[in-house]
Amino acid sequence: MDKNRIKYPVYIDRIQTPEKASLHIKNHDILGVSGFTKAGDSKTVLPKVAERALHEDVKVTVLSGASLGYNTDADLAKNGALYKRIPFQADPTLRKSINNHEVLYVDQHLGQTADMLQNVDIFKIDVAIIEAVSITEKGDIIPTTSVGNSPVFTKKADKIIIEINTSFPESLSGIHDIKFSKKQPNREIIPVLHSDTRIGVPHIKIDPEKVVAIVFTEVPDSPAVISAPDDKTVAISDHILQFLGKEVDQGRLTESLLPLQAGIGKTANAILSGFKNSRFKNLTMYSEVLQDSTFELFDSGKLLFASASSITVTESCSNKIFSHFEQYKDKLLLRPQNISNAAEVISRLGVIGINTAIEFDIYGNVNSTHITGTKMMNGIGGSGDFARNGYLSIFACPSISKEGRISHIVPMVSHTDHTEHDVDILVTEQGLADIRGLAPTERAQVIIKNCVHPTYKKQLTAYFEDAYKLGGHTPHILEKSLSWHTQLKTHGTMQMEELIKN
Amino acid sequence: MDKNRIKYPVYIDRIQTPEKASLHIKNHDILGVSGFTKAGDSKTVLPKVAERALHEDVKVTVLSGASLGYNTDADLAKNGALYKRIPFQADPTLRKSINNHEVLYVDQHLGQTADMLQNVDIFKIDVAIIEAVSITEKGDIIPTTSVGNSPVFTKKADKIIIEINTSFPESLSGIHDIKFSKKQPNREIIPVLHSDTRIGVPHIKIDPEKVVAIVFTEVPDSPAVISAPDDKTVAISDHILQFLGKEVDQGRLTESLLPLQAGIGKTANAILSGFKNSRFKNLTMYSEVLQDSTFELFDSGKLLFASASSITVTESCSNKIFSHFEQYKDKLLLRPQNISNAAEVISRLGVIGINTAIEFDIYGNVNSTHITGTKMMNGIGGSGDFARNGYLSIFACPSISKEGRISHIVPMVSHTDHTEHDVDILVTEQGLADIRGLAPTERAQVIIKNCVHPTYKKQLTAYFEDAYKLGGHTPHILEKSLSWHTQLKTHGTMQMEELIKN
Repeated sequence: MDKNRIKYPVYIDRIQTPEKASLHIKNHDILGVSGFTKAGDSKTVLPKVAERALHEDVKVTVLSGASLGYNTDADLAKNGALYKRIPFQADPTLRKSINNHEVLYVDQHLGQTADMLQNVDIFKIDVAIIEAVSITEKGDIIPTTSVGNSPVFTKKADKIIIEINTSFPESLSGIHDIKFSKKQPNREIIPVLHSDTRIGVPHIKIDPEKVVAIVFTEVPDSPAVISAPDDKTVAISDHILQFLGKEVDQGRLTESLLPLQAGIGKTANAILSGFKNSRFKNLTMYSEVLQDSTFELFDSGKLLFASASSITVTESCSNKIFSHFEQYKDKLLLRPQNISNAAEVISRLGVIGINTAIEFDIYGNVNSTHITGTKMMNGIGGSGDFARNGYLSIFACPSISKEGRISHIVPMVSHTDHTEHDVDILVTEQGLADIRGLAPTERAQVIIKNCVHPTYKKQLTAYFEDAYKLGGHTPHILEKSLSWHTQLKTHGTMQMEELIKN
Repeated sequence: MDKNRIKYPVYIDRIQTPEKASLHIKNHDILGVSGFTKAGDSKTVLPKVAERALHEDVKVTVLSGASLGYNTDADLAKNGALYKRIPFQADPTLRKSINNHEVLYVDQHLGQTADMLQNVDIFKIDVAIIEAVSITEKGDIIPTTSVGNSPVFTKKADKIIIEINTSFPESLSGIHDIKFSKKQPNREIIPVLHSDTRIGVPHIKIDPEKVVAIVFTEVPDSPAVISAPDDKTVAISDHILQFLGKEVDQGRLTESLLPLQAGIGKTANAILSGFKNSRFKNLTMYSEVLQDSTFELFDSGKLLFASASSITVTESCSNKIFSHFEQYKDKLLLRPQNISNAAEVISRLGVIGINTAIEFDIYGNVNSTHITGTKMMNGIGGSGDFARNGYLSIFACPSISKEGRISHIVPMVSHTDHTEHDVDILVTEQGLADIRGLAPTERAQVIIKNCVHPTYKKQLTAYFEDAYKLGGHTPHILEKSLSWHTQLKTHGTMQMEELIKN
């Protein structure tokens, strides 16, 4: 316990054990917790709530930045401590509970939760649990590896619990840029003009009277596990780099491109890694999560600056950056997610959004969330914030999976997260489809030609041609539009035998 | 011909007949034409292009603000003069050509066409045809009843044709507020803080060298035809007013609400008319189209200011406002549609968006464009710009139509224009569903309870309950999810006999 991390002496008396601190949380409470894609989450108090649920009635609603680390979401779900979860999760156990109707889940654009709370005032917040690297002289919070929704949670909460995490160096202080927005109709301009524009202060200003407990922890963030780029993800990355190169050749973009955003996971990380050995230079990022690839790009000299709401990296990357943090400190900014994902800033800066899809259809609609239309995978995250308002909206996925039993390009998506109106570029390891300015029937042709795996080309062409004969701006055979998904359920494959035999 | 409307003498020599002016348009040209929901469109030159197509090869791509007036879109389509149409239309003949694959149609968010042209540079513009009320001393254009995409069209075009329309009073001059945005990464803040904030100049600055022809016309805008509010639309309006009243009671909004946006057509007009006899006061609008109801609200003293991109009114309303234009002039502003529909401004102001749906589903997804998933009706228009980024996103439609053969609430929408993530309030004449902060299974229950017509309640409840048993975050029986639409095609009704008999 390093009490020097608390520069506000009044708080010293409020230091408690995690067990005791967790007792401030009552049954039916609504919690606002720090944490964004595993980074900067509660490592001790929230897990204690899950523990308590094993032997008493504690069922709570948990709002976070995004997904939490370790087994926190899993244990909350497994132990019956979770009534409702908002706005994102990525945990296999919780996912199962959601799909079994044991936990209610509100899958929300990550940029909109703060407004829902502050402005529209749908949920009150009983207790905020916020991880901090230290406390300022005035009792304010210096967050750790994410900002997420922590500012709005502390503002709305009746009580605040602070977890000081001494596994992070105090030198993290200074990378955060916190700005509260006023309620409409008095909302101000968000004056971010470039990725590196600072508009706020480096701490979350709170009312010290609300702080009911301070706990200490030394548990580091649960590390990201990201598999190395493989043939498919490298091919996807190459297609995107080639496309962007052509855009530069045509004078639409410069070699610095526009600020990049990349979703989380293996594909997005591989795509970004690809920029290391590209013609592009002086790149910037205006994103929500920074993964290993961001730091590779810093090290390679390709990337000038990165703005986001969290740093979610592997253990080796974490060791590297936090032991030489001075090297990166001036190149990084962590913002509240209603600023990192703000429509206003994304549209002004012209962000190039690169996100992954579960599947997309021949007309350019994208499903990011649901397996065969019903089962939640993770959630939409911030992909909609960027796809809707950025300069370019790119979605990537492999063309097939499960040894070809699943095609990720289908006649009609089984759930729509990004409509045809919000998608510019679709890419698989097979190739890239630029559907900007195209009518649906034009899109179908270029998507089938460029993105679909050879196994499914004939089958998808047949669907499109048969549908086309029936007419309509967006030709479909409604009776068959979801048949690939139903056949997957009944026969274990989307491949239609009769077509394959022809 | 009133040459005094041209304050820039150089243009006098360029006055031509519409026939001659239309010859500047060549086969395969891409045209950018003024006009937004019938207002301020080309009344002479573009129709001449349609005429020419009867006896020569003239096939063009037409980009506009939104829909055009009179038979312009119809004649272009009918005479085979149209290759591609962007970003909106509402003409029965053109609609048929689109659905028959005779014309390619790109159905686009109205706020995004300007960026596609200027920034992403997908289409060049060969000729811009812009209606004007007059020409300034420097040769710049004072538009008429709409601004639409005219600024970006004139900027991008090789040639400009100006149609001076003397049916409008010169006093229209002054209501426009034109601002060009720079290309990213140098895009500036759009400093609109309130509906009435002026940020630009009252004319479209152009390069006079590009002006190849000036024509005169006296043809007024084709009048809007809006049926009077009926029982259903009044009921929808009442539900919305009651809901907003409750929001005020709960302290979420004041009686001035936040700036209102309303889509076009009978339902939207009726909803807005309802505010006349409501508790609300000092209202403002930040919308795209101003219909008769806007002027009724001005006359009743309820409305302080209205910002939009066009004025589209009935003949009697037009006579009233243009004969006493001084009465309204200081309360109106017409902006380019990339400003009226800008994500940045809509999110900052917290616009309350009220739009109409073709159908919505039990999980809150909305179809605004396609009949039974394939046939284009009009287009998404600006509904997505407002629904995606506003404070509240309200969608309205009748619960049933065609004597009950169609239910507008279905298990799964046959086409998604607004996803579950972007919809807050759904309303029919039956009632209103507030789905903010709800998980899909919660939404289904409140939508079925409040919005569905009694004829379909049992049937939709049965679908939901059967689907629920199968599990999944968003329960669906994929095989049956679109069966209401297919049954409508095969049996002429969505009503399932076996369920009705039970």
